[in-house]
Amino acid sequence: MFKHLCGAKEARKLLIDLCAPVRRTEMLPIAECIDRVVSKDIVSPVDLPSFNRAAMDGFSVRSANTRGASSSAPVYLQNFAPIRTGMAVPEGFDAVVMMEDSVLRGSTLEIAAEVHPHRNVSCIGEDIHSEDIVFKEGHRLRPPDISLLASLGLREIMAYARPKIAIIPTGSELVPVAARSLEPGEAYETNGLMAKLYVEKWGCKALKSDIVPDDPMKIRQAMDSAQDADMIIIIGGTSVGEKDYAPNVLAEAGKLLIHGVRVQPGKPTAFGTIRATPVVCLPGYPVAALSDLYLFVRPALKKMAHLNDSLPKITVRLARKIASRPGYVSVVRVALRDGVAEPIMVSGAGIMSSVAKADGFVIVPEEREGIEAGEMVEFRPFE
Amino acid sequence: MFKHLCGAKEARKLLIDLCAPVRRTEMLPIAECIDRVVSKDIVSPVDLPSFNRAAMDGFSVRSANTRGASSSAPVYLQNFAPIRTGMAVPEGFDAVVMMEDSVLRGSTLEIAAEVHPHRNVSCIGEDIHSEDIVFKEGHRLRPPDISLLASLGLREIMAYARPKIAIIPTGSELVPVAARSLEPGEAYETNGLMAKLYVEKWGCKALKSDIVPDDPMKIRQAMDSAQDADMIIIIGGTSVGEKDYAPNVLAEAGKLLIHGVRVQPGKPTAFGTIRATPVVCLPGYPVAALSDLYLFVRPALKKMAHLNDSLPKITVRLARKIASRPGYVSVVRVALRDGVAEPIMVSGAGIMSSVAKADGFVIVPEEREGIEAGEMVEFRPFE
Repeated sequence: MFKHLCGAKEARKLLIDLCAPVRRTEMLPIAECIDRVVSKDIVSPVDLPSFNRAAMDGFSVRSANTRGASSSAPVYLQNFAPIRTGMAVPEGFDAVVMMEDSVLRGSTLEIAAEVHPHRNVSCIGEDIHSEDIVFKEGHRLRPPDISLLASLGLREIMAYARPKIAIIPTGSELVPVAARSLEPGEAYETNGLMAKLYVEKWGCKALKSDIVPDDPMKIRQAMDSAQDADMIIIIGGTSVGEKDYAPNVLAEAGKLLIHGVRVQPGKPTAFGTIRATPVVCLPGYPVAALSDLYLFVRPALKKMAHLNDSLPKITVRLARKIASRPGYVSVVRVALRDGVAEPIMVSGAGIMSSVAKADGFVIVPEEREGIEAGEMVEFRPFE
Repeated sequence: MFKHLCGAKEARKLLIDLCAPVRRTEMLPIAECIDRVVSKDIVSPVDLPSFNRAAMDGFSVRSANTRGASSSAPVYLQNFAPIRTGMAVPEGFDAVVMMEDSVLRGSTLEIAAEVHPHRNVSCIGEDIHSEDIVFKEGHRLRPPDISLLASLGLREIMAYARPKIAIIPTGSELVPVAARSLEPGEAYETNGLMAKLYVEKWGCKALKSDIVPDDPMKIRQAMDSAQDADMIIIIGGTSVGEKDYAPNVLAEAGKLLIHGVRVQPGKPTAFGTIRATPVVCLPGYPVAALSDLYLFVRPALKKMAHLNDSLPKITVRLARKIASRPGYVSVVRVALRDGVAEPIMVSGAGIMSSVAKADGFVIVPEEREGIEAGEMVEFRPFE
């Protein structure tokens, strides 16, 4: 039995508080900065445009010379230069007359509309001034942002390093994926793979170790050798059985802060630290591990990675009643059918096919005892 | 002037209709299948579990022998075997009694609760039966799905190939990013980079060509050499100026179906085909190119990639009035501040810093003439 079960909200807060945004930075070529976070305000080295740039095809003119021009009283110019969009407006001119408003007759340009100074011209620095801050520290770079950096002639920028997350799958029954066929009592190691794929999706770097057998010494060694990670995730052996060593090893090697959380599935979850490194012990049951990854690990990783942790939510109607245990946060797999959430009625945390059928999940808060059919709920898709 | 302006909805439909879901497939190691789409129903080669698996720590028993057991009238067994979660229930036993309901006294097990057959046992095939379809054609693989494939011992699976998208940046004024410093009238090529990053984000493979100068022959060559792509995106030279060659080249090399779309920004947009390959001509103004990428290219690419094209939408209040031209679809950059959408009041399609400041965009439909301050609008984040 767990000595003390921690509330899900409290557990979540504790883990997030243990995790600090990573301060390490790295210089990266801009084309590799997609979805990376700026670690130092980026200052423009140049004006953009760096010259007075025509915004239309037409003729460069001196705007003062067009004063009073109209279709009934056109103005005739000798001093002009043909120009195309994007070209530099030559010295001595300050505006561009559009093709449509002008007629070229030999060496004379007939203009039917007055133009103001800078008309159809993007002036030097109009978009960005030299020394302007283009992106502040903390900004996540999207494709058009990278395109803007490129237009400033920047080759590389400083970004926060991705948090390094050590993933340690444990269990003497585990066999590396498809390494050989299985004997009864064996299983392929799959939780580590799932955790790795999510860790990478969520903006971090996964360092997955080999499978560690159920042996406290070996678990301790694996934890010790992962201490330069920003977080250690140990999977399996987190309950209170004879061979559930992970939480005890954590208690000996560092601090065990929480063991047992009021969440369904996912009760056998533990959090702690080794020196300053947060350690998460995830249950070996895959559905429970998945639920923990979303409830606890995701917000913690996003914080470390300087990323927004909001997960899209869609408000949908619940097709059938969900039962849940009051005092526990329940993570319920649902399939979306025609915009209605159909709970997947499988209780076993070992039943992976239930996730394959689910489009996402609904969270039942701890103060509720289930949710009635027909109620509106917040659906979150599995990424 | 454009001869005929096409409505934005009609243009979007035309482009999407030109694009077919890619039928090419490839065999991929499962760990590389993240976000890839299954091209052929995946059938399980095994039962999962492949043996009767203990779901609890405790003792394997023959359920019939526990009949009538209760705390006041316990049953004593000689025939049992200790077992841990995940282990195979030995031959001759059909249930597991939990630790908590039993006391081991020497070689005798005292049981305080009757167990039914299969109690605390995951039976062979309970999760997945051999020959079950695990994932249907068309399913996008998420981390837990890949974990499920791994648990079935599958090493690799067949997925649809990613659509190949040729990206051809054109413009005699363009210089490769940071290749050298710029002369007046020159600019770094950045739209191709932006398009490439989005194409990859949207599940496709980008094949970016070198910069092509404003020369119809060279544009034609670039189009011809890109014909094994699933879509050709040409950027720049798409308006009706003297040097806007792309649409005419397309008309000669294949079919020009649309030239000029009622969208702001993005009017100088053209769609067509070369043989069966859809061709998109995007304006060279970066904000217009971005707007076209979202309005037209994204849904077309998602269709080709067998992916859902829904973009998260958040309903928010508009801080200030948006002006728009009736008959035109307007794509308005907005910043979100405290959940309120603040339009970024920059009209120039050349002003890239306006995108840097924007969190996403709001679409004003063609039947509207602007949107009043305070109205609720659908905000879409820039990915």
